[in-house]
Amino acid sequence: MEAWFFENQTGNFGIKIRIESILFHEFSDFQEITIYDTLEFGKVLVLDKAVMFAEKNEFVYHEMLGLVPLFSHEKPERILIIGGGDGGVVRECLKNPFVRQIDLVEIDKKVIDVSKEFFPEIACGLDDKRVRILAEDGIEFVKRVNAGGIESQKYDVILVDSTDPVGPAEGLFRRDFYEAAAGSLNGRGIFAAQTESPFFNGSLIKDVGKIIEDIYPKRSLYCASIPVYPSGLWSFTTGSKKYDAEIINGSYKDFDFLQLEADSKYYSREIHPASFILPNFIKEIMK
Amino acid sequence: MEAWFFENQTGNFGIKIRIESILFHEFSDFQEITIYDTLEFGKVLVLDKAVMFAEKNEFVYHEMLGLVPLFSHEKPERILIIGGGDGGVVRECLKNPFVRQIDLVEIDKKVIDVSKEFFPEIACGLDDKRVRILAEDGIEFVKRVNAGGIESQKYDVILVDSTDPVGPAEGLFRRDFYEAAAGSLNGRGIFAAQTESPFFNGSLIKDVGKIIEDIYPKRSLYCASIPVYPSGLWSFTTGSKKYDAEIINGSYKDFDFLQLEADSKYYSREIHPASFILPNFIKEIMK
Repeated sequence: MEAWFFENQTGNFGIKIRIESILFHEFSDFQEITIYDTLEFGKVLVLDKAVMFAEKNEFVYHEMLGLVPLFSHEKPERILIIGGGDGGVVRECLKNPFVRQIDLVEIDKKVIDVSKEFFPEIACGLDDKRVRILAEDGIEFVKRVNAGGIESQKYDVILVDSTDPVGPAEGLFRRDFYEAAAGSLNGRGIFAAQTESPFFNGSLIKDVGKIIEDIYPKRSLYCASIPVYPSGLWSFTTGSKKYDAEIINGSYKDFDFLQLEADSKYYSREIHPASFILPNFIKEIMK
Repeated sequence: MEAWFFENQTGNFGIKIRIESILFHEFSDFQEITIYDTLEFGKVLVLDKAVMFAEKNEFVYHEMLGLVPLFSHEKPERILIIGGGDGGVVRECLKNPFVRQIDLVEIDKKVIDVSKEFFPEIACGLDDKRVRILAEDGIEFVKRVNAGGIESQKYDVILVDSTDPVGPAEGLFRRDFYEAAAGSLNGRGIFAAQTESPFFNGSLIKDVGKIIEDIYPKRSLYCASIPVYPSGLWSFTTGSKKYDAEIINGSYKDFDFLQLEADSKYYSREIHPASFILPNFIKEIMK
């Protein structure tokens, strides 16, 4: 007998992954959480029937969301991650030599718990003493930081590691969130968010881009190839108050990139700027 | 009622595409040919149950196989395309100002016929007077050219636009074919072939790469994002006797790249070199 997981990635396109076994299944307060063991991709985390990551290629998304914005920043000491309860982006941020504090604001504590249990190699950074875990709503959190207005409590980098813009993450794609996030960054801050597939979600990328362009002096888009995500190509939108996201900051000139690259399967000094070089059809979307 | 097409891209992973209607279905002498009209991708050509291209994103594969090798060559006058009966790569090659002759060697004449009927925007170049269509076995063809040994009949560029390495295309992934192809290129020739997914077909890329490295002074790999292909990321292997495939040749300094880029949805002067910048996990495969 064969068991398969099907995900309708759009109304008219989907993927199927052969399942070895169901390792976990539960409805949390926010969403349906399922972990499959699969023959093709190893263990796979599924939230509300959408694949979040697969063990065998999670490195792409986590490295590219975690490393690119941080290495374009001169000295990213204070990081805020919205979502990302699995810990993959935390693990990558900890590779940056300047990081002193990471606040992880994940609305669903259950995601953190199952990740620690089933994905120790992804969740490994969550117990680092620089990491503070806050199980709460990321939108409310940034609004509070923004309203507080205390510069020393603001962040150098904010990363949005969200699910798709339906269900719990819907508000993370709205102007009021983006504005509060910008207000929670200090004057040299960088913001980055996953913004879906350029092939399937062009209008979302365009809409988010317009808002980011309104808010930040510098806006850019970069992409990475992720087999389990719709179309296999994924986009990340950045807004920056000071630094060019596509350039590795000069402050890393003494940093051991050879070691970083040995520890990374996707990111490198060459991939960082190259991921901002976009095919014409994506440049059209961004106009 | 809903109808869906399923493709098992590996034994344990597949895609599904919702079908509006079946426009064509026939067994040719070589393979099963199906054309679906789909809601997500427009018309889709399927050979032996594998998607060859979809109307909405065929530009990626065709531009990247057709334009990259040609624009790295100083003066690509004589082109040989093995496979590619749909005409997509021909269409792209004709954008190069130096092209004087394209020999298209497609084993299955039926593919040419259905492409002309159902995909006129892809097949449009097939009636160009510079194009000679030969409905025969590409392996036998290059062996004959190679054995003839007449330099003036050899090619500047050979492009292999094949199906997967099962069925009719199997021989196009073997050393004897690669050697005969190299012998069919003149002393400044460039060879390029589609070589499957870096995520799913690493060992094929490695094996082909070793053979190409044995045969040519210069070998390289470049990638492009193609949503309907397994994993969404696709590789092309090049072997070159003289030119660096990743560099646009200096001979194009007066060429109107702005017009080319306006006519292309993926390829650009920036994408050409960037497509050779590879994530660490692909560089590992190539070692």
